[in-house]
Amino acid sequence: MSTAALDADVCRAPGDYRVLTGDRPTGPLHLGHYFGTLHNRVRLQNLGVEMFVLVADYQVLTDRDVADRLGDHVEGLVLDYLAAGIDPEHATVFTHSAVPALNQLLLPFLSLVTVAELGRNPTVKDEIAHSRQSAVSGLMFTYPVHQAADILFCKANLVPVGKDQLPHLEVTRTVARRFNDRYAHGGPEIFPQPQALLSAAPQLLGTDGGKMSKSRGNSIALGATEDETAQLIKRAKTDAERHIGYDPENRPEVSGLVLLAALCQDRDPRLVAEDIGAGGAAALKKVVTESVNEYLRPMRARRAAYAKDRAYVREVLRAGNERANAIADATLREVREAMGAAY
Amino acid sequence: MSTAALDADVCRAPGDYRVLTGDRPTGPLHLGHYFGTLHNRVRLQNLGVEMFVLVADYQVLTDRDVADRLGDHVEGLVLDYLAAGIDPEHATVFTHSAVPALNQLLLPFLSLVTVAELGRNPTVKDEIAHSRQSAVSGLMFTYPVHQAADILFCKANLVPVGKDQLPHLEVTRTVARRFNDRYAHGGPEIFPQPQALLSAAPQLLGTDGGKMSKSRGNSIALGATEDETAQLIKRAKTDAERHIGYDPENRPEVSGLVLLAALCQDRDPRLVAEDIGAGGAAALKKVVTESVNEYLRPMRARRAAYAKDRAYVREVLRAGNERANAIADATLREVREAMGAAY
Repeated sequence: MSTAALDADVCRAPGDYRVLTGDRPTGPLHLGHYFGTLHNRVRLQNLGVEMFVLVADYQVLTDRDVADRLGDHVEGLVLDYLAAGIDPEHATVFTHSAVPALNQLLLPFLSLVTVAELGRNPTVKDEIAHSRQSAVSGLMFTYPVHQAADILFCKANLVPVGKDQLPHLEVTRTVARRFNDRYAHGGPEIFPQPQALLSAAPQLLGTDGGKMSKSRGNSIALGATEDETAQLIKRAKTDAERHIGYDPENRPEVSGLVLLAALCQDRDPRLVAEDIGAGGAAALKKVVTESVNEYLRPMRARRAAYAKDRAYVREVLRAGNERANAIADATLREVREAMGAAY
Repeated sequence: MSTAALDADVCRAPGDYRVLTGDRPTGPLHLGHYFGTLHNRVRLQNLGVEMFVLVADYQVLTDRDVADRLGDHVEGLVLDYLAAGIDPEHATVFTHSAVPALNQLLLPFLSLVTVAELGRNPTVKDEIAHSRQSAVSGLMFTYPVHQAADILFCKANLVPVGKDQLPHLEVTRTVARRFNDRYAHGGPEIFPQPQALLSAAPQLLGTDGGKMSKSRGNSIALGATEDETAQLIKRAKTDAERHIGYDPENRPEVSGLVLLAALCQDRDPRLVAEDIGAGGAAALKKVVTESVNEYLRPMRARRAAYAKDRAYVREVLRAGNERANAIADATLREVREAMGAAY
């Protein structure tokens, strides 16, 4: 099914879908995350799709700088979710480290995948190519299979992804198919083969014209102050041409800023550029700053309010983990029955 | 510490030791298992050492023939344990698949080990060399780390092993050391580095003169009947020399049979051979058959009795799993605290 057709079907029958989505708790979420995926999650949630939002805390253990402040990062991520509109009444927010039965699924799933297949995974290959081979941890190597456990423990059948994550999802689909073939004994399938809901969002650039990324200091965090936002946009890279236009191919930096304002205004970027006309970089930056700050204002207010109520944030996670555990326990029971391992 | 010194220390202070030992449920245990390890486990148990006896059911998932009859194999293994004298009042018999918090430890442990280290493990290398590379499963590849979880979940500090398993135990020691270095923050260590208690038992040969192994049909199962035992020994390989001696180097088959009788009689094999003298293969086989059947008779009687009481066998496992879960839950809590992942 095409992305558009799939999306239309989700809108038509949201009750037929269960979504698994989430993030690694590596630091504050920024506008790239927001327009890339978070915005769409809130839309799906509000359509009535059942949502599971995973804080993938075990997948940052090899990142020493992050792992040393795991608790802060996890809490910050939950704050970002709440700020963006994820509603714990309608979405289950949980950390996979708190759900033992989910993690146990890694074992039978690992038996369904070969080492050669794991080594062929593009993300893992990339990691191996970019680090010394000897430094790739067993956790990184088996990550796609752990992700299969994250998705399949709740039998999610829809996973919003970017194009680069498609190979990962393919591992999940393979694991589900092989598990059913091996253990469903001709009965009804135990795991769905989840579909990818490809992101329709354009790729946002950072203020330096590169890929928006926390580590490059070129991203506007959802939780940043209005001043911090203004400072960051003030230093943003533009070009010498006075007339502002939307031409991502030839003027990536200026067009990136225009797009940011356009997304915040929910308007066509060409119209936004037209409005600014010959105002040059200064006028562009003023518009972007105002648009971003205005757009984020209610989210930031919510974030600040929740940040004062840490007990509530912990309760959101506790309740989410409890619900995830109940579901994971039921799935593991079913898996053990199917495998003939319920003695 | 030498094996003898370690063993002496265990005898002196059995309360200082906690043992993890176990088997993959691949079929009936035979005399090779018994004199190789089971006999020693019962000795340790009776000394007062705390024992955990693992039925490693997840480690047979890739063996299709076994996995298809998992429940039977697990039950058979527990019967063999009970027959051999493992006492559920003093030993915890459990299946690792029933202990989610144990399995969860695989995740943080995998982050402490590199892919290169996993690939260097001799058993894994052996497996890769003997199968098509592409057929090695992710479960096999990560097996030594799962074994670390099996051993460390209960903080076992003593693991009875054969020489060929030393590299596996080294992975467990490495994981324990790295976990402590990384997460104990200078406080008391979280995991012990378990010591290997090397088996002092001689290697038993099968009735064909090769390594005793269920799949070669050359092994005497603990649970076999006296007739089956007699038939198997009757077909055993010997040599043409009429005079029976104990000379493992030059007469391996005859010496293997002599050793079997000697172990069952708890006598020096040279004396056993002397007694038979010029009686030839027929007399030797008669002695071996009688010695084995006599030695196994009480075990076989116990096994038959327990086999009629399947509810009891299931209860042994249920109680063992319950106890293992309580311990694993406590360890996982401690691990999550140490990792800053208890939100």
